[in-house]
Amino acid sequence: VNAELLQQAQAKLDNKTKPLGSLGRLEEFGRRVAAISGTMNPDTTKKVIFTFAGDHGVTDEGVSAFPKEVTPQMAFNMLAGGAGVNVLARHAGVEVRLVDVGMDYDFNGALGLIDRKVARGTKNFAKGPAMTRDQALAALKVGIDQADQCKAEGVAMAGTGELGIGNTTPSSAIIAAISGISVKDLTHRGTGINDAALANKIRVIEQGLALNRPDPKDPLDVLTKVGGLEIAAIAGLVLGCAANGIPVVVDGFISTAGALIASEMHPNVRDYIFAAHASVEIGHRFMLERIGATPILDLNMRLGEGTGAALAMGLIEAGVKVLKEMATFEQAGVAEQL
Amino acid sequence: VNAELLQQAQAKLDNKTKPLGSLGRLEEFGRRVAAISGTMNPDTTKKVIFTFAGDHGVTDEGVSAFPKEVTPQMAFNMLAGGAGVNVLARHAGVEVRLVDVGMDYDFNGALGLIDRKVARGTKNFAKGPAMTRDQALAALKVGIDQADQCKAEGVAMAGTGELGIGNTTPSSAIIAAISGISVKDLTHRGTGINDAALANKIRVIEQGLALNRPDPKDPLDVLTKVGGLEIAAIAGLVLGCAANGIPVVVDGFISTAGALIASEMHPNVRDYIFAAHASVEIGHRFMLERIGATPILDLNMRLGEGTGAALAMGLIEAGVKVLKEMATFEQAGVAEQL
Repeated sequence: VNAELLQQAQAKLDNKTKPLGSLGRLEEFGRRVAAISGTMNPDTTKKVIFTFAGDHGVTDEGVSAFPKEVTPQMAFNMLAGGAGVNVLARHAGVEVRLVDVGMDYDFNGALGLIDRKVARGTKNFAKGPAMTRDQALAALKVGIDQADQCKAEGVAMAGTGELGIGNTTPSSAIIAAISGISVKDLTHRGTGINDAALANKIRVIEQGLALNRPDPKDPLDVLTKVGGLEIAAIAGLVLGCAANGIPVVVDGFISTAGALIASEMHPNVRDYIFAAHASVEIGHRFMLERIGATPILDLNMRLGEGTGAALAMGLIEAGVKVLKEMATFEQAGVAEQL
Repeated sequence: VNAELLQQAQAKLDNKTKPLGSLGRLEEFGRRVAAISGTMNPDTTKKVIFTFAGDHGVTDEGVSAFPKEVTPQMAFNMLAGGAGVNVLARHAGVEVRLVDVGMDYDFNGALGLIDRKVARGTKNFAKGPAMTRDQALAALKVGIDQADQCKAEGVAMAGTGELGIGNTTPSSAIIAAISGISVKDLTHRGTGINDAALANKIRVIEQGLALNRPDPKDPLDVLTKVGGLEIAAIAGLVLGCAANGIPVVVDGFISTAGALIASEMHPNVRDYIFAAHASVEIGHRFMLERIGATPILDLNMRLGEGTGAALAMGLIEAGVKVLKEMATFEQAGVAEQL
């Protein structure tokens, strides 16, 4: 991101009728979106959240509180506009696009679904690699293609989201592989499993890491061996948004695992990332620190889908409007500081 | 607030297509607005921020970085729609009403300004009481009347805001009087004064408290002796919203001083308050703890006017929409937990 544009945007903000810096992070949002977009007047009309959906072979190990049939059921719920991300995106003036990267279900061309299925779910990583390297690359490309499409359509801001029963398990595995933090310390209850199931989940992840030995220096290897198809697509969207100069708002735990893969591949993508959420989880905190992103919201949300991204996009857009719409001291005839 | 309605709202939320509690504080917002409004389907179309404006005699002591002429200049900026609160309220679909409770300026019926002037500013509290008790009561009534008007108009949610050069000084004085925390610990730089000016501001507040001896057990006495006309109106709005069953979103430092006065008068008003902002200031933290409110946002904003309330109202409305618009497991044909 161009440092001169960042300065130019801050100079514009400093002429607005307010004490210097008094709009805090809203000023950061406006400044960064301007610099990323290459204009002092970004048009934020078009905003899109991509909810990437995939299934996970590792659910065979009983790592989730929900049966995996819920993935396609929730996909239909999203297509009908009834899921959390639909409600919050509508509220924020954001479009939701649901992309099938790897659900284990035949949708027969269901209306509104973007069909980019790479495989019917990953394989069980407790017994072997989750994907082939070609599958991981194909799933990355799904996200990159969506970013290219955003550029073509003039989308001002993209958000990430995901749908996939069991996907906190590969996310924790990715963090463990890259950070070296113990699986026990960074594995949590996902959407609500009990003590016994949590112990099982930890065992499954430890087994998968010991068996597959992902190379922490090779993010694509980590993604291939213990990742997920929708996580790969999120990584691709982040890479593609950075390449196309589009701000990308990263949702919660699972999305951040995708963004982590992207930023391990190309550290420059960090300049394009906005982190929607804070989390109490040690694994999420590690990722945000590694990416260098300060979360925007802390509302104890843990639904995924892109729900946090939707709310954060509304706040980022507010920062852009401060840059564009607030009157200057001169315009308003207001005296500056003594 | 009716505990049964709170339970009823949570039961409704628990049937939505999401893991239990996974929308975190959004569920709290939806639940509380429903219980306060007395309906499971609150209509949030009409939302209003009241920016109460007043001047402060204590600016004679050089406590602010801006000359007091900036109060009416900013009032005109707001009436023209160019101030921060206008931009952020437009973004959130919120109307801004500017109420003159005590500006030291003759507006001659300026278009859009609600003229409820009680006095042309307070007196310098470093030399005597800021107001008479009758003035404090009249200014409280200004806020109460706005809340009554909200009820008549069907306003779903009210927000507080303020405009008044110098008004962090009476706010700090109010907190010191009620909390017993030392003036030095809770006085900050307001909109940006230097070290010498900060030392002066502390001296002025200490002098005012020593001279006026406000009774910490009598919030009206505190308000009268070291408060502000706009702070009194904010307290009145909070009281009036609670009386009328309207959720009230309290902006930052100065607004919270008003809400603190209200909650010291009637502890029950706490059930109706949403705190927009976090703050690093010890005084603000004290007030929020005393009121029992957990701030919604932490974006390092310190402009006032109602800017934080505008953003927080957008998030609270999002919580209401979750309650109203999300599909249930049954509607969506989604399997519940295993």
